[in-house]
Amino acid sequence: MALVAENRLFPVEGRSRDLARALYAQVRDLPILSPHGHTDPRWFAENEAFPDPAQLFVTPDHYVFRMLCSQGVPLAELGVPRVDGGATETDGRKIWRLFAENYHLLRGTPSRLWLDHSFQHLFGIDRRLSAETSDWHYDHIAESLAQPEFRPRALFERFNIEAIATTEAATDDLRWHRMIKDSGWQGRVLTAYRPDGVVDPEMAGFADNIALMGQQTGFDTGTWAGYLDAHRARRAFFIEHGATSSDHGHPNARTEDLPQAEAAALFAKALRGDCSADEADAFRGQMLTEMARMSLEDGLVLQIHPGSRRNHSDQVMGMFGRDKGFDIPGRTDYVAALRPLLNAVGMRPDLTVVLFTLDETAYARELAPLAGVWPCLRLGPAWWFHDSAEGMRRFREMTTETAGFYNTVGFNDDTRAFCSIPARHDVARRVDCSYLATLVATGRLAEDEAPEVAHELTYGLAKRAYRL
Amino acid sequence: MALVAENRLFPVEGRSRDLARALYAQVRDLPILSPHGHTDPRWFAENEAFPDPAQLFVTPDHYVFRMLCSQGVPLAELGVPRVDGGATETDGRKIWRLFAENYHLLRGTPSRLWLDHSFQHLFGIDRRLSAETSDWHYDHIAESLAQPEFRPRALFERFNIEAIATTEAATDDLRWHRMIKDSGWQGRVLTAYRPDGVVDPEMAGFADNIALMGQQTGFDTGTWAGYLDAHRARRAFFIEHGATSSDHGHPNARTEDLPQAEAAALFAKALRGDCSADEADAFRGQMLTEMARMSLEDGLVLQIHPGSRRNHSDQVMGMFGRDKGFDIPGRTDYVAALRPLLNAVGMRPDLTVVLFTLDETAYARELAPLAGVWPCLRLGPAWWFHDSAEGMRRFREMTTETAGFYNTVGFNDDTRAFCSIPARHDVARRVDCSYLATLVATGRLAEDEAPEVAHELTYGLAKRAYRL
Amino acid sequence: MALVAENRLFPVEGRSRDLARALYAQVRDLPILSPHGHTDPRWFAENEAFPDPAQLFVTPDHYVFRMLCSQGVPLAELGVPRVDGGATETDGRKIWRLFAENYHLLRGTPSRLWLDHSFQHLFGIDRRLSAETSDWHYDHIAESLAQPEFRPRALFERFNIEAIATTEAATDDLRWHRMIKDSGWQGRVLTAYRPDGVVDPEMAGFADNIALMGQQTGFDTGTWAGYLDAHRARRAFFIEHGATSSDHGHPNARTEDLPQAEAAALFAKALRGDCSADEADAFRGQMLTEMARMSLEDGLVLQIHPGSRRNHSDQVMGMFGRDKGFDIPGRTDYVAALRPLLNAVGMRPDLTVVLFTLDETAYARELAPLAGVWPCLRLGPAWWFHDSAEGMRRFREMTTETAGFYNTVGFNDDTRAFCSIPARHDVARRVDCSYLATLVATGRLAEDEAPEVAHELTYGLAKRAYRL
Repeated sequence: MALVAENRLFPVEGRSRDLARALYAQVRDLPILSPHGHTDPRWFAENEAFPDPAQLFVTPDHYVFRMLCSQGVPLAELGVPRVDGGATETDGRKIWRLFAENYHLLRGTPSRLWLDHSFQHLFGIDRRLSAETSDWHYDHIAESLAQPEFRPRALFERFNIEAIATTEAATDDLRWHRMIKDSGWQGRVLTAYRPDGVVDPEMAGFADNIALMGQQTGFDTGTWAGYLDAHRARRAFFIEHGATSSDHGHPNARTEDLPQAEAAALFAKALRGDCSADEADAFRGQMLTEMARMSLEDGLVLQIHPGSRRNHSDQVMGMFGRDKGFDIPGRTDYVAALRPLLNAVGMRPDLTVVLFTLDETAYARELAPLAGVWPCLRLGPAWWFHDSAEGMRRFREMTTETAGFYNTVGFNDDTRAFCSIPARHDVARRVDCSYLATLVATGRLAEDEAPEVAHELTYGLAKRAYRL
Repeated sequence: MALVAENRLFPVEGRSRDLARALYAQVRDLPILSPHGHTDPRWFAENEAFPDPAQLFVTPDHYVFRMLCSQGVPLAELGVPRVDGGATETDGRKIWRLFAENYHLLRGTPSRLWLDHSFQHLFGIDRRLSAETSDWHYDHIAESLAQPEFRPRALFERFNIEAIATTEAATDDLRWHRMIKDSGWQGRVLTAYRPDGVVDPEMAGFADNIALMGQQTGFDTGTWAGYLDAHRARRAFFIEHGATSSDHGHPNARTEDLPQAEAAALFAKALRGDCSADEADAFRGQMLTEMARMSLEDGLVLQIHPGSRRNHSDQVMGMFGRDKGFDIPGRTDYVAALRPLLNAVGMRPDLTVVLFTLDETAYARELAPLAGVWPCLRLGPAWWFHDSAEGMRRFREMTTETAGFYNTVGFNDDTRAFCSIPARHDVARRVDCSYLATLVATGRLAEDEAPEVAHELTYGLAKRAYRL
Repeated sequence: MALVAENRLFPVEGRSRDLARALYAQVRDLPILSPHGHTDPRWFAENEAFPDPAQLFVTPDHYVFRMLCSQGVPLAELGVPRVDGGATETDGRKIWRLFAENYHLLRGTPSRLWLDHSFQHLFGIDRRLSAETSDWHYDHIAESLAQPEFRPRALFERFNIEAIATTEAATDDLRWHRMIKDSGWQGRVLTAYRPDGVVDPEMAGFADNIALMGQQTGFDTGTWAGYLDAHRARRAFFIEHGATSSDHGHPNARTEDLPQAEAAALFAKALRGDCSADEADAFRGQMLTEMARMSLEDGLVLQIHPGSRRNHSDQVMGMFGRDKGFDIPGRTDYVAALRPLLNAVGMRPDLTVVLFTLDETAYARELAPLAGVWPCLRLGPAWWFHDSAEGMRRFREMTTETAGFYNTVGFNDDTRAFCSIPARHDVARRVDCSYLATLVATGRLAEDEAPEVAHELTYGLAKRAYRL
C-alpha cells in the first residue's frame, strides 16, 4: 500500500486539481533551497551513519514527543536526555515501539505526513507503522541507515539540496563548516548568525558570552563601541563561512532606536546584570536595529522570529531543558513594535528584513499591510505550528491580497529533522500550487502567469531574498 | 417540502460528499452523550408536558430573542420575564406570530437549522414558518406537546440520549436529580458542579452562598480550610448524584497558585467584601487551581468556560436580568493565564482539564499548542456563538494539526433548548464527517482510518474524557 | 484575449457555480448604491475630462503605489506630489511605464482585478498591461479620456449609479455639491459629515477649525454648548446637501458618556491644546456619543471606521503627507469601547450605527455578537485591505451565523478611484452570490430564499440602512 496519496493536498474538484497537478509537475523536481533551519553541520562534516531509527525520528523531534507527552507518555521513556544526565530510555527498539503504539495520535497532523513520506520515499516502506509493524519498521530502517547511501552527504545529494543554512550562536567556532569546506565536498552548507546569546540579557551566560566574543575578535566588548565592533567581526567571520542571514528569536517584535549614549548605558547595565525585564526587552529591541544597520554594511538578511513563550513547564525545563515542546505562542504585535527600526532604516531597498509570526491574526491585519509598503520588509513563510497544509493555506489567503507574492520569500523548513526536509518542501510546493490553481480557476490569476509564480514561490523568491 | 436538506453540511464536490455520507451513515445513529448542558432536571423529574410552543422555542432561547431584539423587537413582546414581575406578553400565539413574522432574520444562522430540524423531525412539519403559516405551526406543535410521546422522558428516549449532564450551583439541593433517581426511570441525568456563586467574590450573594455551604456541610466556611473542606463535601454530594465534572464560567482564564497563607488571607478579604477587582480575579484564579487539586482526589473533570463579558446592556440587565443575549465575548489569553495551574498539577495524566474559548484566535495560537503538550489538557468543542457549521469547521482546521484528534473531547450541546439537542449533535456529526472526508480526499487521513476517528469524535472521546 | 474571466470569483464546483451564476444574473445589473466613499465632488460639478492615464490610475491610488513602493520604487517617480512642492515625476507616460513594468507585482491582488476590469469593460482593452504594451495602453486610454463619454457625469450614468456619497470635512463649504445641484444634472451626489478635524484634539488645526465652525454657524464655539450647537447647524447644512450619514475615522472604537460638566471641561482643555493623549482619546470618544445623540435628532447614520495607525513612516509623512499607503491596521477592541455609547442610546431602534473594522479577529468574537443583539448596530462591509474576495468571504463566514444578513448594510466601495467603482461592486456581488450559493448547496439556505437575500445584499440593505 502507498503510505502517502499521489494527489495529496491538491484541490478535490476536477479542474482545480488538474491545474494544480500541472503546476506541481513543473516545480516538483526543482532543487531545494533551505535558507533557514537547524540541521547539525557536524553530520555533513563527519558524514557518519545516523544512529538508530528512534534517534533519527523520535527523540530529537519535538513535534513527535510533545504529542506523545500530551497523552501521558513520559519524555524519559522516549529517550529524551535529562539535564542532570539521569537515566532515560536508551533502547531504540523500545522507544520505537512506544512511538508505534501511539502513532494514531498523529492522525491529521503534518508530522504524520512527513513521517509517512519519509518512510515511503526514503526507506521504501509500504506498510503503516503500528504496534504490530513496529519491529519490522525498526529493523528495516536500521538496516537502511547502515548503508552508505543513507549517510548525510548522500542524502543531501539525493534530496537535491542546492543550499542549506544551519544556525549557529554568535560565539560558535564554526568548526564543522570549516571541516565541510576543507573536505572538498561540494554540498553547500551555510551558517547563519544567531546572536541571541549575546544580545539577550536574560539568557544564561550573557556576560560570559560577550566576554568570549571579545576574546574571539580582539575588541573590548566591555564597551558599547567594542561590543558593536565585535558583532561586525563575528558577522564577517560567519559570512566567510557562507552566512547570508542573521536570525533573532525574541519573545516579541519590539525594536528600539535609542540615542547611542542611552544604548551604551543600557548595554553597561545589561553587562552588570542589572536590567529590569523591560530594560532587557528594550536592549533586545535596540540590537535588532543595530543588526539592521550592520546588514546595510555587510548584506546579511535579517530574520525576526518572535512570539514564542518559552519553557512553559518549570518541571520539564528543570529536568530536560530547553526546546522540549513546551514553547507556546502568544499574541504578537508588530505595528508599533517595528516602527523604530523601520523609521531608522526601513526605506532602504538594499536592506531585507524577513518577518515571521506564530500569531496568525497578524497576517492580514499587520504583516501584509507592513510588507506591502515598506521596501525592506518581506514575509517569511508559515512557521512552526503553522508549517502545515492549513497553515500555509491561511498564510497565502491572508497575505496575498495585500502583500502580493513578491513580498514573500518562498519556503523555509526550519527543521532539525533532516529526513523531513524533502517531505516539507513537497508539502509547500503542493499547497502553493493548489492555491495558485484555485486563483486560476476563480479568475484571480491568468493561467499563463501561474507557472511563473509557482517557480518564484518554489525557487526564485528564496534565491533572491536570501541572496543565495 | 423538506425543511432541511438531506445532504446538508456535506462537502459539495462529489467524491468528498460520498466519503462524508459514508462516514456519517456510521455515526448518525450512535447514542447521544451530552456531558455539558443546561437542560432543567425538573423536566425529567416531573415529566410534565411542555407548555406552549412559544415557551418551548422562543421565550427561553437567547439565540432567537437576541436576533429579534437586534432588529428592534422589544424583549417584553417576546414574553421574556421581567425581574420586577412587570407585564410582558403572555399570549403564546401572539409571541409565536411575532417570531414567525421575523423568521427570515434567522436565515443563514444555526438557529434556523436547529429549528427547522426540530419542526421536521420532531413534529413532522413540512411547511416553512412565516407570517402566513404562523397559526398552523402553533396549533400543530401545541397539539403534539399535549401527547404523551412529547413528554420529557419520552423525548429523552426518542433522542437516544445515553447520558446528559445538567449544571447546578454548588449550593443546589439536587432535589430533581434525587427525584429522578428515586422514580426508577432509567434515563441517565447527571449533575455538574458549578461553584461560580461560591468562588466569585463579585457575584451577588457570595458570602451568603458560602454561609449556606457551611450549613449544608457542617464545615466552618468562615475559614479557608473549612471552606475548602466544604467544597470537598459538596463535590462528593454532587458525585453521589452522578456528577463527573465541574464547570467554571470566569471572565478570563486566569489561574493562580498562591501560598496557602496568602490564599487564606485573600479568602478572608473576599468574605468581607473587600476585594478589589484584581483581587477578586486572583481569587477566582486561585480557586481554579484548588478545584484542579480536588479533581486529583475525586476524579471530577474540570471545565473552564472563560471569556464572556456579561450583561453588556445595563437597561436589559436591570429590567430582565442575566442571560438575556447581552453577553459578548472578548479577547482571552491562555498562555500566561493557565501557567500557575499547569505548573501546579498539569503534568498529571490522571487530571483532565477541558478548555473552551469564545476567542477563536486562541485555537491555533494558544489552545492547540497547549493541549498538544500538557498531559492534563483537552480542548472542548466550538462553543456558544461558534456552535455552528463554520465554527466547528474552524475549530477542526485550527486545532487538529497541532493538537490532533485525541486531545479533543467530542461534542457538547451546552443548551437549555431541549428540542435542539438532536439537531445540534447532528450538525456536529455532519461537520466532523465532512472534515474527515476532506482530509481523506486530500490525502491527509487514510480512508480506512477515518471511520475509527469518526466514531471517536462522535462517541469515544466524550465517553472517556468525561468518564461517562 | 479577455483580461477578466467570465466566471471569476464563482465557486469552482459545478452545482455551486450554477447556483452562483443564476443568483448573480439577477443582481448584476441592479443600480449601484455607493453610500460611503471618497470621490471628488468637483468632478461631477465641473464635468471636465480626466487628465492622463497615470493621473487616473496610478498617482492617486494608494493600493497601487504602496505595492510599487514596497519593492523599492520611489514615490516621487510615480508622480506622488510632495508636501514642499519639490520635484516629482510629471510625465504621465514615464509614470505609466514604471507602473506597467511592475504590473506583475499586483498578481493575486484585488487591485489587479479592478484594473483589468476597468481596462476591459471601460476602455475595451484586450491585451495585458506590461512593459511591452505600456505605450499602447497609455495612448488608448488617453484617447478615450478625451471623448465626451468619458467625462465624469457620463461615466456616472454609464456606471448606473443611483446615488453616491462623498466625504467632506465639517467645515467644508460644499460648493461643489451646490454647483452640482444648481447645474440641473440629475446625478445624485450626496455629501457625508466627517468632523474628524473638529473632534480630534490631535489633528493639526483643531482649534482653528472649531473657530471657523463658529464663524460659519454663528455659535460661540468657545463653549461646550455652542460647540455642540455648531455641530447641529453644520449637520443640518450637510443634510441640505444630501447627507444621510456622518463618518468618524478614529484610531480606536473608544466611546465615552461623561457627565456634561466633565465633557465641557475636557473640551476647554482640548481647545487650549492641553489634552494628554488619553484625554484626547476620551474627547474623541465623548464626541461619538454626542454624534449619536444628534443622530437621534436629525437622522444621520453614524459610521465608525476605527483602527488605522496612520503615517507609519515619518520620512514619507514629512515628504508626501497623509494617505500615502503607510496607514497600518492594529488590534481594535469593541466590547468595552462601545459600551458607554450603547448604554446611552443603543436600545433605540431609530438610531443606526454602522461599525467597520480593520481587525478581522473582531468579526466573530465581538462585532457579530454585538450587532446580533443591539438594536442600533449594523455591520459595515469588509473594509480597505479586506475589500477583496477573501476579505468579503471571511466577513460573511465570520458574521452571518451570529448577526445574520439583516444586521449588515450591503457594500461600500469607499474609494477615490472612480473607475474602480463598477469593478468593486461587481466583486462584491459575485462574492456574495457565491457565498449564498454555497449555503444553498450545503443546505443552509433554501434555494427559493436565496434570490431575495441576494437582492438585499446588493441593494435593499444599503438603501434602507443609509436611508437613501
